[in-house]
Amino acid sequence: MSAADLEQLYVHESVENVIPKEAFVEAFSDLSIPAELVGDGREYTETDAVVTYVPRPEFLDAGWVHCARAGYDAFDTEAYAAAGIPLTNSSGIHGATVGEVAIGCMLSLARLLHVYRDHQNATEWYTPKYERPFTVENERLCVLGLGTIGEGIATRADGLGMEVVGVRRSNEPVPGVSEIYDPDELHEAISEARFVAVTLPHTPETDGLLSTAEFEAMREDSYLVNVARGPIVDEDALIAALEDGEIAGAALDVFETEPLPEESPLWDMEEVIVMPHKGSATNRYHLDIAELVTGNVERYQSGEELRNRVA
Amino acid sequence: MSAADLEQLYVHESVENVIPKEAFVEAFSDLSIPAELVGDGREYTETDAVVTYVPRPEFLDAGWVHCARAGYDAFDTEAYAAAGIPLTNSSGIHGATVGEVAIGCMLSLARLLHVYRDHQNATEWYTPKYERPFTVENERLCVLGLGTIGEGIATRADGLGMEVVGVRRSNEPVPGVSEIYDPDELHEAISEARFVAVTLPHTPETDGLLSTAEFEAMREDSYLVNVARGPIVDEDALIAALEDGEIAGAALDVFETEPLPEESPLWDMEEVIVMPHKGSATNRYHLDIAELVTGNVERYQSGEELRNRVA
Ligand SMILES: NC(=O)c1ccc[n+]([C@@H]2O[C@H](COP(=O)([O-])OP(=O)(O)OC[C@H]3O[C@@H](n4cnc5c(N)ncnc54)[C@H](O)[C@@H]3O)[C@@H](O)[C@H]2O)c1
Ligand SMILES: NC(=O)c1ccc[n+]([C@@H]2O[C@H](COP(=O)([O-])OP(=O)(O)OC[C@H]3O[C@@H](n4cnc5c(N)ncnc54)[C@H](O)[C@@H]3O)[C@@H](O)[C@H]2O)c1
Repeated sequence: MSAADLEQLYVHESVENVIPKEAFVEAFSDLSIPAELVGDGREYTETDAVVTYVPRPEFLDAGWVHCARAGYDAFDTEAYAAAGIPLTNSSGIHGATVGEVAIGCMLSLARLLHVYRDHQNATEWYTPKYERPFTVENERLCVLGLGTIGEGIATRADGLGMEVVGVRRSNEPVPGVSEIYDPDELHEAISEARFVAVTLPHTPETDGLLSTAEFEAMREDSYLVNVARGPIVDEDALIAALEDGEIAGAALDVFETEPLPEESPLWDMEEVIVMPHKGSATNRYHLDIAELVTGNVERYQSGEELRNRVA
Repeated sequence: MSAADLEQLYVHESVENVIPKEAFVEAFSDLSIPAELVGDGREYTETDAVVTYVPRPEFLDAGWVHCARAGYDAFDTEAYAAAGIPLTNSSGIHGATVGEVAIGCMLSLARLLHVYRDHQNATEWYTPKYERPFTVENERLCVLGLGTIGEGIATRADGLGMEVVGVRRSNEPVPGVSEIYDPDELHEAISEARFVAVTLPHTPETDGLLSTAEFEAMREDSYLVNVARGPIVDEDALIAALEDGEIAGAALDVFETEPLPEESPLWDMEEVIVMPHKGSATNRYHLDIAELVTGNVERYQSGEELRNRVA
């Protein structure tokens, strides 16, 4: 990178969608350049870095833009590439946060914690059907997309004694994963799994990847866990598959439309866990992102390749 | 053991409290002696083995009695010892079953899955306080009683990157546990823990072990997980500690009185997960117990020491 040095880090207030903006700016107090909170309607130059949750056209005048999320699908990567402005995202930090939520959901689905909670709320001492609860130990999990989150889930599932397989484009080994399938072997990969976890980015390739045919290929006693992005799953097809018993249940942190519309039948399904897109929400999320950004400021100033560059 | 050989295995119908009785009897179809389902009002001799959930005086005339549960506190162990009748229990098989439930509960308490479920049931897209959710990774778990279940929890928690310590009477190392405290260092052991998991048997020594002083010793942001037996925890003291903010929450599978009485304030506490004593409930529980009993029948016939002898 032969760009001018950065002189200022701007934090766009939209980051408050996911983190406390003041605490986030404070996390940069030891940075070599000043950090400042800004709103819309400002101009940028090549000595400015911007951390933001939402895209804005004026960010294309800055020297470097960091998307505060892992999923940067709202950003026009082609425009960034054309302008030669590096765009980075917050992947690489969600292995533990989203990984733990996915594991918690699988344990809940297997051992009925969500159903016990419903009965707790009705002051009912509940006895499930004997056949329903099962241990995740020895069950097969198929992880689609073995990046940071996929690996975070895989290693944890391995620690629970699950048999973990996955789908990725390269067949380099991944810790905790016993078998890797090619994307064009998707049906084979998911057909024997008790759990299918989606940890792919949302791209034109992955849009609607899981639909009627995939739910038919899955076991009838299997569960879908989507902690990636809603549109990777055809939601109408999922609802139909759940209603028809093609699969047994799901844990969903993400949806085609968020917040999930009130009229969605997903809310009321006993075997569907609906979460409000909080897979990565923890009390130290702003520190994790700040650490990533700080590292990239240092890399930028010393002319090194930025970490997590996506355009 | 110099007793007469066993000729008959009786399965007392009370096992249906936890397992399907017919499927359980069927699991003995390959056993060297016949297995038969029985009710009350029968006489036993020394060539009979009995598998039961509840104690009955007449079982003391049998050659050997197996308690279908791990907790055999309902049985009069002194009477068995005096009569010279071996009593065995079903411990050693709950590491995965109860371990998974405890881990699922910790993940729920850390990441708010139980609270998201409440809001799902109210069709609400919920945003928690930023400070509330945290990752279990790097958090300290203290396990009280490092037997089968304790170790089942410890190894799984270790796989999630937790810092696991424990309390046991011997300081032999346990997989996944980084530090072992003596029972008389209980307060020291629990004082720094984010989670305290109870996996002790209920004995005169452990009765009411956790009460006001212990909850005061615990962190205010800590959570109690009791998957062992209700009376190990002083329930009134626990309720007071939760109401006063001495601890932050709890996951309880067991209670002083079960089913938990309707008027218990525990039912309505948002940060308390109430489960209907289903920690070990899975669809293969009858097979796990049958495997244990089958092994002991073989040991009995060959004069070997029985596994899990508790009196
Ligand atoms: N639920 C949440 O709160 C939350 C939080 C963070 C991220 N996410 C979502 O999760 C996604 C993954 O996050 P991550 O941090 O693991 O990102 P990552 O970039 O580390 O991992 C994504 C992986 O998917 C692989 N991949 C991409 N296209 C593929 C295809 N067609 N077939 C197979 N593999 C493919 C990539 O090679 C990479 O290994 C993000 O894009 C984001 O949308 C959700
Ligand atoms: N929630 C459920 O559904 C469920 C299921 C099975 C068992 N249980 C309960 O869990 C208890 C433990 O089960 P387990 O299979 O792990 O039994 P276990 O016998 O394998 O383990 C109990 C451990 O506690 C230790 N211990 C006993 N007294 C102690 C004391 N005073 N201080 C420190 N350590 C002490 C023992 O040495 C042993 O290591 C059972 O007694 C039963 O009451 C609950």
